Order: sequence, then C-alpha cells, then structure tokens
Amino acid sequence: MNKKGVILLSGGLDSATVAAIAVKEGYSLSALTFFYSQRHEVEITFAERLAKHFRMDNHIKISIPAEIFRTALTAESGIDVPKNREISESSIPETYVPARNIIFLSYALAFAESTGASDIFIGANAVDYSGYPDCRPEFFEAFKKMAQMGTKAGVEGKGFNIHTPLMNMNKNEIIRLGTELGVDYSLTHSCYDPSPDGSSCGECDSCFLRMKGFAEAGVPDPTRYRAE
Amino acid sequence: MNKKGVILLSGGLDSATVAAIAVKEGYSLSALTFFYSQRHEVEITFAERLAKHFRMDNHIKISIPAEIFRTALTAESGIDVPKNREISESSIPETYVPARNIIFLSYALAFAESTGASDIFIGANAVDYSGYPDCRPEFFEAFKKMAQMGTKAGVEGKGFNIHTPLMNMNKNEIIRLGTELGVDYSLTHSCYDPSPDGSSCGECDSCFLRMKGFAEAGVPDPTRYRAE
Repeated sequence: MNKKGVILLSGGLDSATVAAIAVKEGYSLSALTFFYSQRHEVEITFAERLAKHFRMDNHIKISIPAEIFRTALTAESGIDVPKNREISESSIPETYVPARNIIFLSYALAFAESTGASDIFIGANAVDYSGYPDCRPEFFEAFKKMAQMGTKAGVEGKGFNIHTPLMNMNKNEIIRLGTELGVDYSLTHSCYDPSPDGSSCGECDSCFLRMKGFAEAGVPDPTRYRAE
Repeated sequence: MNKKGVILLSGGLDSATVAAIAVKEGYSLSALTFFYSQRHEVEITFAERLAKHFRMDNHIKISIPAEIFRTALTAESGIDVPKNREISESSIPETYVPARNIIFLSYALAFAESTGASDIFIGANAVDYSGYPDCRPEFFEAFKKMAQMGTKAGVEGKGFNIHTPLMNMNKNEIIRLGTELGVDYSLTHSCYDPSPDGSSCGECDSCFLRMKGFAEAGVPDPTRYRAE
C-alpha cells in the first residue's frame, strides 16, 4: 500500500515538481488548493489538471475571504503587482501574502491528521524566491515544533514530516529535476498578473524567475507570454 | 485611538468573556468566526449577536470544508458526540478537532498582519477543558515562535501577542469575571449537539462544564436545556 501524503498544490512549477517527487517516492497524494481572490486565479485550473495528471486521491479546493490578506496579489488590495524587478533584492515585496503558508500548512496538518497521514509536501524554496519569511527552513522547523505541541498525533508521539524537497534548489535545478521526472510544465502556471486570455505578463517577479530558470536549464519554456 | 485586536469569536461563553475583557482593556475588535459543518452551527448566530453587542469593527465568517476535519463535532464524520461523561478524563476525546486552533489562529494572524494589528485574543483555557492539545500554554508559546519566524511583522521585529486571559481559570471563575464585566450569557451557546429547536442537550461535555460552572459561580444559567 502506498504511503499517504498531503500536498499543497498551487498549479505552479514548484508544486508540480514536488508532486512528481512524492509520487516517485511512493506516496499516494491528496492535494489542497486555495482560492483567495488572487489575480492569478487561473492557477487553480492548472492545479486541477495536475491533480488529474498525477491521479491524486483527493483534490480539495478551499476559499479564503479576500479581506483576510492584504497583498499585491489581489485586486481588492489596491496594490499593483511590482513589474520589471521593481522590488528590492533585500526587502520583502508587496507580493508577500501575510501568513499565507501558515494558513496553507495548517489546513494540510488538519487534513493529514484527519486522514491518518503523516507527510506533508510543499514546494517552498529559499534560493530563487522572493524574500518571503514563510519560505525559509527556520520557519518550517518552527511550524513543525508547533504542530507537535498542538495536535493529538504530535502529543501522542506520532507527529508530522513537512517535506520541502526544493528548499535548496534554484529554479534552473528544479526545472532540470522535474524534466528528468517527466513533468509536463505546460500544465503549470507562474504569472502573478495574467491577462484575461490567460497569457503571462512576462514582467512580474514570478515570470522573471520562471523565464530565467528555463533559460538556464536549457529547457524550452512552454509558457505563453503576453505579446507586447 | 483604540488599539486594534483580532478575536476568535465562537459564540461560546469563553470567547464572549474574552471579548468583554479586551473591550475593557481598550481594544477595538475585529472578530473571526468559523463554519466547519459543526453540529452546533447555531453558535454562529450567537457570535453574530455578540459582535453586534460589542460593536466590533468587523466580523468575518470563514467556511472550512467539512472534509478537512474528522471529529465527532460534525455529522459528516459519522462519530457520535460523547454523552454523560463517557469520555475518559485522561485521554483526548472524539470531540477533538484536528489542528482547529492552529487554523483559527493562522487566520487571526493573517488578518492581524494585513490590518496592522498586533494583538490576538482567544478564549482557550487549560483548566476546565476537554484535554485538547491546542488549548495548552506550551502550544501557544510554540505558535507565537512560529509566527515570529513566518511573518513579515515577526521578521521585522514587531511580532504578535496572543492573549489567552482565561488560560488558568475554571468555568466558575470565568462566569464570575464575565458577570462582573456585564456579559449577558444568554447571548452565548455551548452545546455540541443542540436540538433542531436550538435547545442544548445537557449531556455533552460542553453542556456539563457550562452547567457546573454556573452552579459553582452561583449565577443563574440562562441556557434552555432540552426537556427530557
């Protein structure tokens, strides 16, 4: 019997790669995907395709009210998505979503404990990332300790593993690994600010990291970028 | 100007008492209330009345899909609510909801950070409780550390306070304090398994603690219990 895992599936290239890794390791996956009025809501459709592609056991979609998050990633915030590397390399950008991974992991924890799973997968990485505090190893370490204290499984000594296999990889390495594992990156979406026709802006931080990653990996980028 | 606080408002007597404490301390409150297909969904109506009564700034209701939680508190689980102290004093009962306070606090954290609040209020207590791991001081301590690591406010040194003013009080003391503060407990609901007409069962753990609390405090219990 396969081991049970819970994966946070955004529809992006990182979580798609993590899904391929987990499947290869023999996990039978349930996916959680979140709608929080993100401008790139289209990513949910990509997550659905990925969940089918990887034949996941469950795919639960969860809605978070837009007013919970103040972030450039929602139109409701009135903050624009920074373009063309406007963001400073050293500070946390406006695309930061307050406590987003904390909420996402909390759901994964609840669903894992409810279904008897001990393994949670998330595509966080601390190399080619955008300076988000909830993507760093020390955050995941603290989350794990908190989960040990605050759950029945934790108190009873069973506990949880939070797998972050991409933590120390850059986008180029992630894409190469995923390509080796047969990931079809045309099933993934990265742009923070896509056009109504679904094409990517090519100018936001997330597009920039994606384009650079494909170029450095020497893998053709299947993304449809907006024509100028 | 009032200080901003975020309160987890269930509609029960503990969170109502915490609201009264926070208001007395000068906090201007935003409340979060959760629907997770709990049998005692009626508590949400009580939370709405309390939010109005305390003239809160915001009251956000959040829906969590029923399949996230396996607990006797939802009919979907197929587990009955234990009655007449069936539960053992030493073990975690079937009314435990996996990672519930972790999810609730994560939302409070996101909303606090999004609105510039630093103070979160929750009516947890570790005396007259049901053995839930996420009601203990060591859990809140670990949550706070995790929040410091995983948020922009935390990393930048501002951080969050998680207020658990009822932590070391029993129900009797909570009811006496609330009564002094003018809390109208007819606006609160405790029963885990109410009748369709809204009356309380008088037999579940939560009814038991409530009845005992009022009796010991010498305060009339305004609850309508189901006629036998």
